[in-house]
Amino acid sequence: MIKLDLSYTGLDYNFQDYSEKIKKINRDIVEKKGKGSEFTGWLELPFNYQDEEIKKIKEVASRLRKISDVVLICGIGGSYLGAKAAIDMIKGNYYQDDVEVIFCGNTFSSNEIVRILKYIEGKEVSINCISKSGQTTETSLAFRVFRQYIENKYGKDGSVERIVITTDEKKGLLRPLIAKKGYDSFVIPDDIGGRFSVITAVGLLPMAIAGIDIDEFIKGIKDSAINYSNEDILKNEAYQYALIRNILHKKGYVSEMYVNYDFTLSSISEWLKQLFGESEGKDGKGILPTSVTNSTDLHSMGQFVQEGSKILFETIINVEEPLEDMEFPNDSENFDEMNYLSGKSLNWINKQAYLATLAAHYEIGKVPNIIINIDKADAYNFGYMVYFFFKALAMSAYILDVNPFDQPGVEIYKANMYKRLGKPGY
Amino acid sequence: MIKLDLSYTGLDYNFQDYSEKIKKINRDIVEKKGKGSEFTGWLELPFNYQDEEIKKIKEVASRLRKISDVVLICGIGGSYLGAKAAIDMIKGNYYQDDVEVIFCGNTFSSNEIVRILKYIEGKEVSINCISKSGQTTETSLAFRVFRQYIENKYGKDGSVERIVITTDEKKGLLRPLIAKKGYDSFVIPDDIGGRFSVITAVGLLPMAIAGIDIDEFIKGIKDSAINYSNEDILKNEAYQYALIRNILHKKGYVSEMYVNYDFTLSSISEWLKQLFGESEGKDGKGILPTSVTNSTDLHSMGQFVQEGSKILFETIINVEEPLEDMEFPNDSENFDEMNYLSGKSLNWINKQAYLATLAAHYEIGKVPNIIINIDKADAYNFGYMVYFFFKALAMSAYILDVNPFDQPGVEIYKANMYKRLGKPGY
Repeated sequence: MIKLDLSYTGLDYNFQDYSEKIKKINRDIVEKKGKGSEFTGWLELPFNYQDEEIKKIKEVASRLRKISDVVLICGIGGSYLGAKAAIDMIKGNYYQDDVEVIFCGNTFSSNEIVRILKYIEGKEVSINCISKSGQTTETSLAFRVFRQYIENKYGKDGSVERIVITTDEKKGLLRPLIAKKGYDSFVIPDDIGGRFSVITAVGLLPMAIAGIDIDEFIKGIKDSAINYSNEDILKNEAYQYALIRNILHKKGYVSEMYVNYDFTLSSISEWLKQLFGESEGKDGKGILPTSVTNSTDLHSMGQFVQEGSKILFETIINVEEPLEDMEFPNDSENFDEMNYLSGKSLNWINKQAYLATLAAHYEIGKVPNIIINIDKADAYNFGYMVYFFFKALAMSAYILDVNPFDQPGVEIYKANMYKRLGKPGY
Repeated sequence: MIKLDLSYTGLDYNFQDYSEKIKKINRDIVEKKGKGSEFTGWLELPFNYQDEEIKKIKEVASRLRKISDVVLICGIGGSYLGAKAAIDMIKGNYYQDDVEVIFCGNTFSSNEIVRILKYIEGKEVSINCISKSGQTTETSLAFRVFRQYIENKYGKDGSVERIVITTDEKKGLLRPLIAKKGYDSFVIPDDIGGRFSVITAVGLLPMAIAGIDIDEFIKGIKDSAINYSNEDILKNEAYQYALIRNILHKKGYVSEMYVNYDFTLSSISEWLKQLFGESEGKDGKGILPTSVTNSTDLHSMGQFVQEGSKILFETIINVEEPLEDMEFPNDSENFDEMNYLSGKSLNWINKQAYLATLAAHYEIGKVPNIIINIDKADAYNFGYMVYFFFKALAMSAYILDVNPFDQPGVEIYKANMYKRLGKPGY
């Protein structure tokens, strides 16, 4: 569950003043009358999951877990950011499991691809390739390299059980391959764009492969979809967040810094950068999303936030209950003069750092802070959070009056690139 | 070596117009008359390395490598960012070595500390603790936890060879501990602040532990110090970079996005965020440093850069020669229609993505781009680059008229935190 805390924004506002506008936009969203509404299939999906599909996802995940030391997840953008955010948050850093999940297909880096090839040598390997069109260059490139590796190692027949594809239902380059080879496959729906695809097989399969309870994830999504369906801004914290960030933007805060206090949450910031940056960064508009992981980055970016240019506000993703905790030990010699913390839990100490920083940034630095409190780092809460941000984003982008669901600017460098690469037809 | 390319800034400027101002500031830097000049010991260090110290660093590193599976580098901010940037760039991701370097002491996260404790179980472990005062809370906390682990495992005597401390020459909490226990230790000079400390034992020892050639690193630093000592802006690319970023800032570009095309360079961006953000983010001033690693992040932040708010310029860190490379393989079936790339090197493909994006962002998106070309991902070039940015930062901060060498804002949250934690005296 999520609790929004707006008491550190420094704003003087009355939600009632915006009530009608929010209701109108909510109607546009629900009735699919807003810009880009053909890509709002994520509105119904929470209530339309097919038992058959979920069952197959679990079966395939279970098989890949059984036969693999490493499962390569081959996708870029929305085809990996959500699953990575989930796994990092729910499993944590340095998690020990029989199966290691490695994200590839998200770079042209020769360093990365060659090193992963070396790293998987001698290990049992499978791959889940995720691409709607089968034409995303980074993903296609890595998929060819690793598919050839797997086919060389296990033979054409032996590799069939190790290659799973998530793609368009009928179209694209991957369907003929699936038909020819007999790979298991899953569908990316036409009406759900990449930034929202973590709630489809795109996110579900990698999460299941990592051992995450996807039933709980779906339960969180559904509860969240119900909770944030209220058209009344007084009762809808997702819409409150959307409104407040736009009010701050209008006041001249051009950047939103996503802040957390744990490395396991850093990938959520990367996912949020895509969700908000790619959805809103168009027509010369949009809030620049940035991120820090504190207290680590208080020792690099803290000075800027505290006393630098007054151009940013902070949005804190605070998870109450940690994955792990321990008591800070006593030391009879106390050379480090740290015994005043003996017996305190590390998580308590981390929380004090967070609260102290919040006060310093807000009260002295005059930096507006929005706080998003999340109960726990588990699959249910991850699903709940994801859908909170979906609803917030749709509302926010319509307040800003942009189409939240397209990304025309991404095509520009691609066309340039294809020309340089000598792709036929360019 | 570094080559600065300013042909994509979109600016109309004449360096001659700034020549006198730059010369004056250069004199302030060299003659130590500028703000905070008591912390410019990094100006002389390139020419004052002590053979004795370098020899000892190599010996200790060699010993730790011999007796360890894992060496924990325990430090935060400037006490880890430089070494991490070096190791990530020069060794690369997934690098295989007998010794693994893990950075700790840079967080209060219970998740991180507990997981590292579990991860090192059964492995041979050593630690290098890096703290000027011995009073940095994150570092002291982790150092106590891991020192106790090592003492429990190897005994008081057996642990002495496994604990190495880098700290103030005489002051601070760590000196009495060193004296009592007999640990090897290295000195952080008084006149070199954290952001510049990568060129001291703070950076040298972890780099040597990771198997990096520190003689080459020092050679790069020295050549760079000589090259960028020229007071004439026409002949000093570090000063050119400093000036151009300030001109862009004045034109309303409030954020500088550090861009690279390889995950191995991502940590350089984190190091740069501290160097520029912490040095310039004061008195309500400063450029907000942000970062992306492309082509990966073109699929999240690319849309914003191309078509979003016109508030940022890009600074590309382009390394010409990769650590690894391979040819993209042919596929007789060509389901993915990627055979047009068969036989091309992955690095060449990555470079086309970079050049295509540069053109799209600059020509169509009208986003100013500064390009910093670096020959190779090796120790020499890393040293050369580090010193380029030192000189650029000093010039840039003085152009902005702030003290580049203090960080008063960092103390504010710390005082708050000590109060909340119940630290004696607060």
